[in-house]
Order: sequence, then structure tokens, then C-alpha cells
Amino acid sequence: MTTVSIIGGSGYGGGELLRLLLGHPNVEIKEVTSRSHLGEYVYQVHPNLRKQTQLKFSDPAALESVDVLFLAQPHGQAQHHIEEYARLAPRIIDLAADFRLRDAALYSQWYGEAHAAPAWLSKFVYGLPELHRAELMKASYVSGVGCNATASNLALLPLIKADLLDLTFPIFVEIKVGSSEGGAEGNSGSMHAERANVIRTFSAFGHRHTAEVIQELGVKPDCISLTMTAVDLVRGVLATAHAKVKPDVATKDLWKAYRAAAIENPFLRVVKEQRGIYRVPEPKILAGSNYADLGFELDESTGHVVAMCAIDNLMKGASGSAVQCMNLMMGWDETSGLEFMGLHPI
Amino acid sequence: MTTVSIIGGSGYGGGELLRLLLGHPNVEIKEVTSRSHLGEYVYQVHPNLRKQTQLKFSDPAALESVDVLFLAQPHGQAQHHIEEYARLAPRIIDLAADFRLRDAALYSQWYGEAHAAPAWLSKFVYGLPELHRAELMKASYVSGVGCNATASNLALLPLIKADLLDLTFPIFVEIKVGSSEGGAEGNSGSMHAERANVIRTFSAFGHRHTAEVIQELGVKPDCISLTMTAVDLVRGVLATAHAKVKPDVATKDLWKAYRAAAIENPFLRVVKEQRGIYRVPEPKILAGSNYADLGFELDESTGHVVAMCAIDNLMKGASGSAVQCMNLMMGWDETSGLEFMGLHPI
Amino acid sequence: MTTVSIIGGSGYGGGELLRLLLGHPNVEIKEVTSRSHLGEYVYQVHPNLRKQTQLKFSDPAALESVDVLFLAQPHGQAQHHIEEYARLAPRIIDLAADFRLRDAALYSQWYGEAHAAPAWLSKFVYGLPELHRAELMKASYVSGVGCNATASNLALLPLIKADLLDLTFPIFVEIKVGSSEGGAEGNSGSMHAERANVIRTFSAFGHRHTAEVIQELGVKPDCISLTMTAVDLVRGVLATAHAKVKPDVATKDLWKAYRAAAIENPFLRVVKEQRGIYRVPEPKILAGSNYADLGFELDESTGHVVAMCAIDNLMKGASGSAVQCMNLMMGWDETSGLEFMGLHPI
Amino acid sequence: MTTVSIIGGSGYGGGELLRLLLGHPNVEIKEVTSRSHLGEYVYQVHPNLRKQTQLKFSDPAALESVDVLFLAQPHGQAQHHIEEYARLAPRIIDLAADFRLRDAALYSQWYGEAHAAPAWLSKFVYGLPELHRAELMKASYVSGVGCNATASNLALLPLIKADLLDLTFPIFVEIKVGSSEGGAEGNSGSMHAERANVIRTFSAFGHRHTAEVIQELGVKPDCISLTMTAVDLVRGVLATAHAKVKPDVATKDLWKAYRAAAIENPFLRVVKEQRGIYRVPEPKILAGSNYADLGFELDESTGHVVAMCAIDNLMKGASGSAVQCMNLMMGWDETSGLEFMGLHPI
Repeated sequence: MTTVSIIGGSGYGGGELLRLLLGHPNVEIKEVTSRSHLGEYVYQVHPNLRKQTQLKFSDPAALESVDVLFLAQPHGQAQHHIEEYARLAPRIIDLAADFRLRDAALYSQWYGEAHAAPAWLSKFVYGLPELHRAELMKASYVSGVGCNATASNLALLPLIKADLLDLTFPIFVEIKVGSSEGGAEGNSGSMHAERANVIRTFSAFGHRHTAEVIQELGVKPDCISLTMTAVDLVRGVLATAHAKVKPDVATKDLWKAYRAAAIENPFLRVVKEQRGIYRVPEPKILAGSNYADLGFELDESTGHVVAMCAIDNLMKGASGSAVQCMNLMMGWDETSGLEFMGLHPI
Repeated sequence: MTTVSIIGGSGYGGGELLRLLLGHPNVEIKEVTSRSHLGEYVYQVHPNLRKQTQLKFSDPAALESVDVLFLAQPHGQAQHHIEEYARLAPRIIDLAADFRLRDAALYSQWYGEAHAAPAWLSKFVYGLPELHRAELMKASYVSGVGCNATASNLALLPLIKADLLDLTFPIFVEIKVGSSEGGAEGNSGSMHAERANVIRTFSAFGHRHTAEVIQELGVKPDCISLTMTAVDLVRGVLATAHAKVKPDVATKDLWKAYRAAAIENPFLRVVKEQRGIYRVPEPKILAGSNYADLGFELDESTGHVVAMCAIDNLMKGASGSAVQCMNLMMGWDETSGLEFMGLHPI
Repeated sequence: MTTVSIIGGSGYGGGELLRLLLGHPNVEIKEVTSRSHLGEYVYQVHPNLRKQTQLKFSDPAALESVDVLFLAQPHGQAQHHIEEYARLAPRIIDLAADFRLRDAALYSQWYGEAHAAPAWLSKFVYGLPELHRAELMKASYVSGVGCNATASNLALLPLIKADLLDLTFPIFVEIKVGSSEGGAEGNSGSMHAERANVIRTFSAFGHRHTAEVIQELGVKPDCISLTMTAVDLVRGVLATAHAKVKPDVATKDLWKAYRAAAIENPFLRVVKEQRGIYRVPEPKILAGSNYADLGFELDESTGHVVAMCAIDNLMKGASGSAVQCMNLMMGWDETSGLEFMGLHPI
Repeated sequence: MTTVSIIGGSGYGGGELLRLLLGHPNVEIKEVTSRSHLGEYVYQVHPNLRKQTQLKFSDPAALESVDVLFLAQPHGQAQHHIEEYARLAPRIIDLAADFRLRDAALYSQWYGEAHAAPAWLSKFVYGLPELHRAELMKASYVSGVGCNATASNLALLPLIKADLLDLTFPIFVEIKVGSSEGGAEGNSGSMHAERANVIRTFSAFGHRHTAEVIQELGVKPDCISLTMTAVDLVRGVLATAHAKVKPDVATKDLWKAYRAAAIENPFLRVVKEQRGIYRVPEPKILAGSNYADLGFELDESTGHVVAMCAIDNLMKGASGSAVQCMNLMMGWDETSGLEFMGLHPI
């Protein structure tokens, strides 16, 4: 069995990692750390894990060596400890934003401070298999993905890859998100009485995940914007991207591009039905699943394309992609441990 | 007292009209019709009205004359009966879409059939006081407003009126809506188990309310699109519009335009705070209120403006605007009967 | 105009008081205090009040005299300052639990500490008009009511008053509550991601409001229990009480008792329909309204009665009852300022 | 591989069965029938199954023989066709209520009509492994379980089995349920705008599942009542049962009884924590899981016990228990195909 440990296991990303790794056929979890819950059973924080494991949260200062180390801490911590983490494990997968960007200047522009370990940036591979599968199979260090970036990147990926977009026009990505995206800490606006029933456009421009879209899709910074709206849901992200296709691009070209993406990637599906209730991608049915559901609609008269991607922010947008990356790094079946189909209804 | 009757009182718009008119100081409700609930107390359908009125639903075929007649039927009925309704009352306010468009060709383009009473289209005034206050004060026939159109029109109105937009660029309006917009009839997708927790982009293009935006804002048809996303909420619409400002337009110009709109219109407010939980317009706190809350954010480097408008779809987006129009038609205080402030928290 | 001030205006009870008093025809609000939001506009905390008032939160240490002083602080503060508050106003209405119990021993039993101003307990009248209308009309000092106690007391009041219950059998009251009951401060369990979708029986026995039921209904302490379950809703309480009627009590006797209560009390309604969607009391449609909706069902074969009461915890369960008490104390119409009917749908 | 077919696969129970059987290592699904969706892909109705199966809904009239036949039709159909179903398969598991009761008189009392195949009642075993494990291992015909009955039965089972209750006192079971319990068909009260935000005690007495509690726990009919309250949730049931323990029964006796149940049964867990957010059983974290979480609280001074059980109504309360029964009937690992742990947060 491959041994793994998780640093920072009491947050939502850490809890979801625990669930996935406990169900993974090839791994054995050695340690899960949490300073604030030191000594507690992990099921006291993540109650779904009761009767699944007797693991307790341990002290991050006393970690032993393992084959794969997952970092699930809040953003900004891993970059200060990466040297010591690298001594603990030959393979590291970091869920936070510390090593997502390849360029230290881009990092400081979007995160407002210099990166603490810029030399490490080039050692990491961006952890989205749909973009970096071949590199991930050889990688030692893998970054996490931003959930909003992932929904945006996957919505647009088939269009970019097939070179269907007129990139002189700006791309507007409207993203709607559930409350788990805010993390287990929260703030006064995360209280149920204030957060229930919201449609709250809390960020019109400038969300940090924009940097990952610019880097990964290769679009010009001025040509893309992410607008974030919080809605009443716990898990889920829907990105609805507005862009312009090149002249003469037709719906059949889009079908071809999206179908190709779904064939090449086990966790991509195209959802574009003419009847029934679920005709477009919806995060509702993806809770706990690693799928990214893609959809599109083209106004052929204007060239306006609406591209959609729905994911579970804690799965394909975080812990699910991380496990998928581990599978690739270790040469295992890419879908191993990620078989949960999602629920209907929910 | 001015006498009023409502044709079609068992739907959500009719129920909200009933609530508002029961609380209005100047009117007396004579009759409320419903074929499907004939003879029932109105409070059996609208339970909030228990102990407020002993009115029962009556037969629309037996209506008597009144001063003001409200039509709250499903779309497509009023145009077939408008002559007979006009014999019952000198003033008619129709909440449905039958008389919103001035141009029969535009109507048939968006509604897919010829209008049954095209000669009447020019007799109606579009029922949005923020756009037609002076005409409404002299009007006999007033149309309702589409809730999504209203959120879009009011989000953009200050920008259009102050001529701040570069209209050669397309305007993308992303609209998020609650379930009451679907009406009291619903369909299989309206069932709670299917409709709860959704983020469902059910219409990428071509929503019928687009026609009202084109007409009322005077933008070119190819230059505006409305994209509709259903979220988990009962009452409320948020329109988030993306557009481009003219060169050299700055944030202070937008402040000026929005402030002017809020000063001129009793039900418009500008919400743009630097701190606190409620920094942007949110429909959550508008349930039952007639306010339209406006906000904006400008990226001065690109000229990309995000304009927002939050309303209660059953109030400012339907019955509230209808009562506001009645107040103007009758020469009463514009806010009469519309004083409810909304709730926090909710 | 009668002058009023509110100590502690930034919480949910204080915000709801502000809304009600701003709409009250006989009062003028002089000051609203908040230490944590000192100097901010009240609408920055309670966004529904934007464009309704330019009041700012003031310093509680600098209050001036008024006709009526409302105390909307967290529990446990008013009893330490009651002497100074009494010098500021001849009439005080306290929303907290400090002066709800008449007996200092009962207080210390349920609140786990000695009362700081026991001599004041007898000067206060319990602020539920349905139980103490005559006393309230002569009162100078009025306590608030616990929202869960109110739902329980009103569900059972008609049965107790008509002496229909066999009180040798225990009464089990099952209470389901929304999240606003937890107040604006909250805790880790109040976060949306943890609090959404819950059915959480957080207190099987021993909720402090039980003391108010024992005192006000005069039942034996061993004979009544309140069991609290949190559900996914912001505003609302439903109490479902299980008790046993005396031999030979029939459904018609219960009808008589409940109808009498609804006739005597302007804010009580009986909801017991044979058809339609809303056949029983439901807090859903009471948001913002001061009504308490009562219902019942009797199994005549066993004598088991299920008595129900639905309220808005921030209205009839807190600020609404407080304003109703003010109306009685001042000799005004009991319903003044409390006319909002509630919404359907919501 | 063992072959299975499902009659009635388009409802919620059928969809959940499909998900579980697709993931089961020992079975192959031959056919899934649906008259209303004949010829459609199953993923068009159950969108979580997209990319999992290319099965289409087939005609129930043309079914071929299989090893195990699941019946997931609406109540009242299976009893009219049981002879023909028995010719198709040696083993039948019926999810509906047709064969849950052993006594035709009890059936007609609670269902208001004579049973159509009374001779078959004694051939079926009630499908709750926690009550009938040994019989199920030898059974050919297994009934489904009512979800509310299951939550009630499991909440009380440890108390009944250890003979801790004073059964001369009535047992009141307060049950809170999500909307999926109403099935995929629904009614006007199931519409999102009417069903969202509810706390609706829709049945004070007389719910049909009561009959299953009487039969399975062996309590006297007059001694138990189920009171049903709908709350805003899609999946989940919480039963909170109030009963009286025998003299001198203490909390430690209850611990012993509940712990024993959890040790003997792989899907029972005891949840009774002193700290953290999840201290009691909650259906929220059980969506998709087959666990039944049990809890209790005893007032030793009065003998009043509050016993709780949380389940996912579509899993342990329907399809999950059905698959668990199949595992027992076939001699497989009882937990096979039921490994999903549930999600946190959700």
C-alpha cells in the first residue's frame, strides 16, 4: 500500500480528501494533522467518517515520512514550509493556491505580496489533468486548482483547444457558487441567517482565480473577467461564460469540440438535452462526484456563445482533482477512488 | 373610495395585488375572480390574507363595473377580451405580457404568433414609472412589466440615460431568478426535490423579456442578450449586466448617474458599500418591498462595467409596479400602499 | 409624538424593532445604540432600512430621556443596569430574558446564577398580551417573551383556559426553529455550510424557555418538556404540542376554545382547513407578520391532542409582541404599526 | 454475475436502486422498465447516471427472467401482478407498501381497502435487516420498508429489545421529512415556491407507516402515534421519539442498549457527542449513505426518554435497505455496494 498523510485535515478540503483516501484501494492514510482539533477523532469534525476510521488528528510538527503528502492548509502557509515538506515525501500535492502560478510576478500581482518560495514555482505542475495529463504522470510536485478557475477553464477548454474563439473580444465568465467555497472558517456574512436565500454578486472583478484562467488558457489578462455570485447552496459551482466565436463557426463545430473533450477525459460529460428536467449542466447533481458537466449554446446570428461548466467545488474543484492527480502520478487508473456517481434527487 | 377588481386572483401576481390593495388607503376591492377556485375564500389560496378579508373568488363572467380593473391572468388571455374589459372600467392595468410591446411585429417575433388586438397596443403605456412617469399620469391603459426586463432595464437605465455606454459593444445581462417567477402552475422541474439547490441556466438566449429591454432601452436587438439562471430562492431577481463604457468614463460619472436616478425615483436605491455584509444589491432583503436596489462596479482600465439591479419579482417586477402605476394614474402619492420596508434577516 | 429609544439596535431583535417603530404612526425614534457599530448608519447593518432613516448608532452611555425605552441587548445585561435605565424613561420594555420570570428562585434554577436585581422582578409584567392584556394596559415595565415559550404558550392556551387538558399526563412540545433564533452573533454551527439542510434536535430537554411555559401556563415542572429541533429556515417557529384531553372532550370543544381565543385576540388565527395547500399553521407565511396561527387535531379514541402554533420568532416571538405591548401601555390601538400581512409565496 | 431487473425505474426509489446496482460488484442489470419514459436513456431521467450506463427504459410487459426482481412501482400495483412477477424471478424485493404487513386485516384497516393478494402476505419477510436478518438470509420474497417506519423502528429498537420502556405510557414519534419522500409525482403543495421554507405538520395522526411500527415493534396500536412534519430538505428523515422508561432505568442502561445495536448492525451508529457541531443524529450528512444514526437523551428524574434516528429516506428508508436485503438473501457481504460514506459539508 502507498502511504499518504494530510497536513490540515479539519477544513472542508481536508475532510473531502479523507473521505476519498479512506475509500481508495491503493492507499493507507498514516496521519492527518490539525492544530485546532489535535487529539480529536476525525469523525468528530467530519461526522460522515464515523465508523469508517479511528484516526485522530495529529500534530503537524511530528509527521513521519510517507509516499505522498497532501497539503490542505489555508492559502499562504505551504510556501513557507515547502522545504521541510519535501523532506517528508517524494511526492507532494498542495490544494492551496501557493504553487498554482508559474510566474512569481503574476503571483505577486494577484496575491498582493511576494512569493516566499519562488524557486519552487517551476517545480510544480498545475493539477488539472484535462490540461496537463502527460506532465502529471511524471510529476513529483502538483498544485491544487482553484474551484472557480476550474469551472471557467473546463467550460472554455474545448473552444480554446479547437481554436473556435475570436479572442479579440473579451470573455465574461459569470460564476455562481455555494457556501462551502468560503471554507470552514467563514465570517459574519457566512452565518446562515445572512447567507441563506442570497443572490450576492460579491466580486465583480479581480477574483484571484482569474490568474489561473489567464495562465492556463493563455488568454490576455485584459480579455477575461470572472464575476462571482454567491447563491443558496452548499456545494457547487456553475460557470457561465460568454464569448464570441470566429466567423462561420457553427453549432456542429462546438458539438465536435465538446464531444472530443468528453471522450478524451473520463470526468468530462456533455449535457445538452432537448427534453427532461436536466438539459444543461447543474452542480446540484454533482455533490460528491468528480464529474465536470459541460454545456454550450451558440447564437449563430451573432456568434455569441454561452459555455457552461458545473462542478462540485470540493471535488473536481479541489480534493477530487487532487486524488485524480495522485492516480496519474502513481500510474494508477485515473478514476480510482473517484467512482461515486452523485445523487438524484438531492 | 376608488373601486377596483382583479381578474385572475389565484396566481402569485394576483395574490400580491390583493395584499397590496387590501392595505391601500384609497381603494376598495369589489371582486376578485378565479375560475379554478370559484367560491373559495381568497385566504384559502393566499393564506397570508386570513383575517384580512372575507372576499371570495367570483366568476369573471359576472363582473360589475369599477374604476380600475387589474388583469392578472396568464399571458395570452387579455388580448382576446380587451374590448369587453374596457367596457367594465375606464382604467385597466394588465400584469401579463399582452400589451407590453408597442409594435405588433416585435410581438409576433418574440411570442411566435400574431397579436389578437394589435390596434390596442398603442393605447397602452409600459408600466415602469422610472421610464414613463409623465405618460402614466395621463394613461388609461397600462401594461405590466416583465420581472427580468425590469431588473435589466433598471440596472442599465442610469448608464443609458447619462449616455455613458459604448453601445457598439454587446451588453450581456446575467439574470438569476427565484422559483415564484415560474408562477403558481409550474411543471415537473418546479417540484421541490428537483428545483431545490439548483443553479440552472435554463435559457442562454431568447428569453421573451428581451423584447421589453430592446424596446424600453432603445438598444439594437443584436446588442443585448439576457441569460437566465434559476437559483434556490422563492422571491427575487438579480440582474448583473456587463457592458462597456465610453472612453474616459470614470467611476465618479457612474456615481453621478446612479445617484440622480435614486433621487428622481422613490423606489430606486444605490447600494455600494465598502464594509458590512450587504455591500451590493441583493433580492434577499427585498421580499415584499417595492424597492429596486442598484449597484455598479467599473474596471477603469478596460471600461468594463458591471451594473446590478435586485428586485422582488412579484413586487417591483409585477404587482408592486402595477400599484405604483395606479397611484400615478389616479394622482395619488406614488408610494401609497407600497410602504413595506422588507425584512432583515430573512 | 411619543419618543422612544432602543438600547442594543444592531441585533436581529433590535433591527426588527427599528423597522416596526419607523412605521409606527405615533412614535418618534430618538436614539438607537450599538457599541460595536457606533457611528454607522443603521441601514449599514439592517439594509432593509436604507432610504427609510438616516439614524446612526449612538453610544449607550450618552442616552437622553424618552417616553419609552426598549432594551434589545443580549440576555443578562439589563438586570445590571435597570436602575439607570429607569431614570431615563418612565416605561421600559425589555426584549431579553432578564425580567421574564417572577420568581428569583425559578430564575436561578433555569439560568444557573442568581438574579442581579431580584427586587425588580415583581415590577415587570410578562409581555404576552394574550395572557396579560389588562395588566399590560397599566404597566410601566414589561418583559419580552421567549419565542419558543410563546409558540408553546399560545398553542396550549385555549386548551388550558377552557380546562380541557388532563394535566396528570405530561405535555411534550416539539419545537422546530429557524436560524435567526440564534441571534446575529452565532457560532461555528451557525455557518451556512453546517446549518443549511439541517434537522438537528439540539436540545432534548432543559431549554430555558421552558421556565416561561411553566410560569405562564401554571403547569407542574415535571409535566412539560420542550424539545428543540433546528431546521433550514431563517424566520419561524412551529410548536407541535402533544397532550391528553380530559375524558369526553370532543373536537367540537376544541373548536370552541380555539375560536374564542381568535375572537378575543387580534393576532390569533385558527388554521384548520380540509383542502388546499395551507391546512395547518405554518411559519413560512408569517415572516414579518405579528400573527400567531393556531391549529389542533384530536384523536377522540385516545384523547391525544396535537396542538400547533406557528409564529415569526422575531415578531410575535420578540419585537412584534413588544410593540403590541407598547400599544397597550400607551392606550393605542393594539395593532398599530403591526399591520403587515405576511407574504405568499415566500 | 447475478442478473437483476427493476420494474418502475423512473421514480426516486428506482433511480436510487439503479445507482446502487450499477455500483454493485456482483450484479448485472438486465432491464429497467418505465411506461412513461419508455425508450429514453435512464440518464435522461436520472442525470447522475450519465456516462455510467447506456441502459434505456424498457416495457414492463416484455420482461425476461432474472435472478432477482426489484419492484419500485407506486403503492398498490405489485399486489395485482405478484403471480406474474413470481414467474419471472425466484427472488423478489418489493419497495412499495404492498407486502409490508403480515395481516390482511391490518392492511385493510390502514390502507382502506382489501388486499388483492392476501395469500402472499405470509410469504414475504419485512425488509429491515436489523429486525429480520436471519429470516432474510433464507427469504425468497422481501418487502420494502416505509422510510418513516424505519426511522421510528430503529430509534426505538434498542429500547424495546433491551426491554427498557414502560409501554403502558404512549410513545409519541415526531418525524421531520424532506421533499423526496413525496415521490417524483408530487402535487400542488410540492411546488418549490410552496414547499420551500416550510415547517408543515401535514399529518398529526394516522400516517400509514404507523402500521409497520405497530407490527414490527409489537406495541399496542393505541400506544404509538407518528406525527409528520415536512421541512425544507430534499433527502432525509429524523424521527424524535418520546417515551417513558421503566423505573430505575439510567442513562448507562441506554448506552449499553444502543452500543449493542451498533455493534450487531453494520449500518447503525450511535451519535451522542459532548462537543462539536454534530452531537446528535442528523440526516443532512447521510444523503446517499445507508447509515442509520441513533441517539438518545434521558431525563432520569422523570423517566422521559427522547430517542432519535436519522436516515436518508431513499437509502436506509428504501433502496439502500433493499440492496442490503439482497446481499443477505444472496449470502453476500451485507454492506456490498453500500459503501458510500456520505458527505460533509452538504
